[in-house]
Amino acid sequence: MNNITNKVADLLIEVRNKAPLIHNITNYVTVNDCANAIMAIGASPIMADDIRETEEITSMSSALVINIGTLNKRTIISMIASGKRANQLGIPVIFDPVGAGASKLRNDTTESILEQVKIAILRGNLSEVSFAAGLEVSTRGVDSSEADANNDGVAIAQAVAKKYGCVAAITGAVDIIADGERVVTIKNGHKMLSEVTGTGCMATSLVGSYAGVSSDYFTAAVGGVASMGIAGEIACEEVGSMGTGSFRMALIDVLSRFNSELMEKRLKLNEA
Amino acid sequence: MNNITNKVADLLIEVRNKAPLIHNITNYVTVNDCANAIMAIGASPIMADDIRETEEITSMSSALVINIGTLNKRTIISMIASGKRANQLGIPVIFDPVGAGASKLRNDTTESILEQVKIAILRGNLSEVSFAAGLEVSTRGVDSSEADANNDGVAIAQAVAKKYGCVAAITGAVDIIADGERVVTIKNGHKMLSEVTGTGCMATSLVGSYAGVSSDYFTAAVGGVASMGIAGEIACEEVGSMGTGSFRMALIDVLSRFNSELMEKRLKLNEA
Amino acid sequence: MNNITNKVADLLIEVRNKAPLIHNITNYVTVNDCANAIMAIGASPIMADDIRETEEITSMSSALVINIGTLNKRTIISMIASGKRANQLGIPVIFDPVGAGASKLRNDTTESILEQVKIAILRGNLSEVSFAAGLEVSTRGVDSSEADANNDGVAIAQAVAKKYGCVAAITGAVDIIADGERVVTIKNGHKMLSEVTGTGCMATSLVGSYAGVSSDYFTAAVGGVASMGIAGEIACEEVGSMGTGSFRMALIDVLSRFNSELMEKRLKLNEA
Repeated sequence: MNNITNKVADLLIEVRNKAPLIHNITNYVTVNDCANAIMAIGASPIMADDIRETEEITSMSSALVINIGTLNKRTIISMIASGKRANQLGIPVIFDPVGAGASKLRNDTTESILEQVKIAILRGNLSEVSFAAGLEVSTRGVDSSEADANNDGVAIAQAVAKKYGCVAAITGAVDIIADGERVVTIKNGHKMLSEVTGTGCMATSLVGSYAGVSSDYFTAAVGGVASMGIAGEIACEEVGSMGTGSFRMALIDVLSRFNSELMEKRLKLNEA
Repeated sequence: MNNITNKVADLLIEVRNKAPLIHNITNYVTVNDCANAIMAIGASPIMADDIRETEEITSMSSALVINIGTLNKRTIISMIASGKRANQLGIPVIFDPVGAGASKLRNDTTESILEQVKIAILRGNLSEVSFAAGLEVSTRGVDSSEADANNDGVAIAQAVAKKYGCVAAITGAVDIIADGERVVTIKNGHKMLSEVTGTGCMATSLVGSYAGVSSDYFTAAVGGVASMGIAGEIACEEVGSMGTGSFRMALIDVLSRFNSELMEKRLKLNEA
Repeated sequence: MNNITNKVADLLIEVRNKAPLIHNITNYVTVNDCANAIMAIGASPIMADDIRETEEITSMSSALVINIGTLNKRTIISMIASGKRANQLGIPVIFDPVGAGASKLRNDTTESILEQVKIAILRGNLSEVSFAAGLEVSTRGVDSSEADANNDGVAIAQAVAKKYGCVAAITGAVDIIADGERVVTIKNGHKMLSEVTGTGCMATSLVGSYAGVSSDYFTAAVGGVASMGIAGEIACEEVGSMGTGSFRMALIDVLSRFNSELMEKRLKLNEA
């Protein structure tokens, strides 16, 4: 067990003790999963996307999660305004550029958010993070995940982290977490995580939950991503043979039973 | 077994026999849970929030449920217009001021609805109902529930009921139902109900389901709140050890198997 | 086993092999169920409803599913624009007129879509499809299903199919699939499918998944509708006694385990 694993396990205890309020401006497809994942890990979710209240809600929260899974003009304005307010107050902003690369609207919104809001942690699959890095990509849908763990992943994560001064978290068959200096890979997770919708969004909201109790965003990103990966492994062991409906339910079950011992025992972390 | 318990059990039979149509203008986080809870108890849900159809949908419904969990300008207009139409037609309006006290928008909207629409039943946690009563409160998120059953609960429920001429239902560790004259407390429920999102919203939609078959709104409020509480107890007994994902699924399971015998056997009602 | 059954079973293999991208402009009540059903059957969902990206998203998809379960001005524009784009590109449009007959807005929108967009497959319950056929109907809510399989069903399905040059799929106690020439009935399914929300919407999204890999829309409609019906039967056998929460989860489980052998073994198809 290494030092980072210890820190992640400790951070989980903090999440459960402090139950930070996590403001999510997110999509209507997986919003319920995100709320339940946040509660399962011990934090407290609030969803609000109207410009007349989002800055106020952000102000009283411990982290802001921005997820562009289903965009519209009304919520884009709220995302940027809330992001700026979070920056003013030192509240970490976690950004999930869902489907970046798939449409001009998503591309423009991703660029606009990255320009106007200082991001603490960027979480996406390889093609989404590649787009954020300014690289050519072809995205096919928001749930595709093929080849997300190729050899370029580490370089792309590092490039994004340096470009935006943030932590970059690329999830896929192997997860990659990088800041300007450190890189780790996480070999938890299971293929079934790509067979239900919302596991990426939930990972981002879990990252937000960890970031809500610590300014060590690198550790927070590892914690959120690892929680989802380990939950996927255990959920598959427990009910995977039943199918993806049971698996999805079990993800929340496992997150709700998660504790620091489980994290220390299961986390497959490698420093690159 | 007292008289109210009998009435509640009878009302449940009515819900299952008449399958009233319940119009919900609600949030996008827990809307699916609300629809499934309404169907599980035997009523029929319809969700519609565009101003060009909400009054028409309300007109053919047996109850209107207004839930401000995720507000925006478009739906606030629909809530008030539908509420007024319901008032004209004698259709009960059930109001859930989710997060009242947490932002100016939620406060203003709550006040606006209470001013312009005659509410049959107000359902919320202690801080939300306290706000509606005009008291100072500090809300922290929409899923916080600490101390919701303190000694002030009965007085606050009575104050709100008298102020608005409605039934007030405060849910928490102990649930309180009051109208201008009577007060009862319900000691059903389980802590796990506060560990998944949507249980408050579902309780409100269940209250609406009962109110859709009777003008005895006091009994309807007891019925809806008690159904959720008892479902929570049984769901926890059956699958609670698995985690909050299984628990959430089991809530709907239990509601779908609910009947008058179960209500009479499990309801822990005290007249205050 | 007849020829159509063979074709349906083969089409399922195609869905799993090709994983077509299915663009859904749908309601916020059952959107998550639709996404998970699409993934469970082997296709890939994308949900996008903002006019600034819907046509682009449609362009890269293999089918477009339009569902009017929760309408608003913003999304109606997107539905029609995306439908027209799909028509230009030869991408099949699957239309679910949820609640047609229940409000002027739903009626007007249904008519507007049918006028401006060439539909490949229309999927609804009897009253919804009757409305589309220009017949008098009384819709009561979006989940009512009484008498959906009456003797008029076949005639109505044929009338709609001829009127719009599309495949018509009426689901109910008995499902009816018709194009201008052929009619088949499917006697799969279970009453519990009418006791949870979203099973109609999921059926439509499954139809879209099949239509995404074949221009034989008749077979695609049979495939999608039959998949839902058979999933309902098996889910009920496996967990029906637990209640509707477990049943709903098991629907996704069964869809995720679905294969051509199961389709051939269980499909109860009759050529009318």
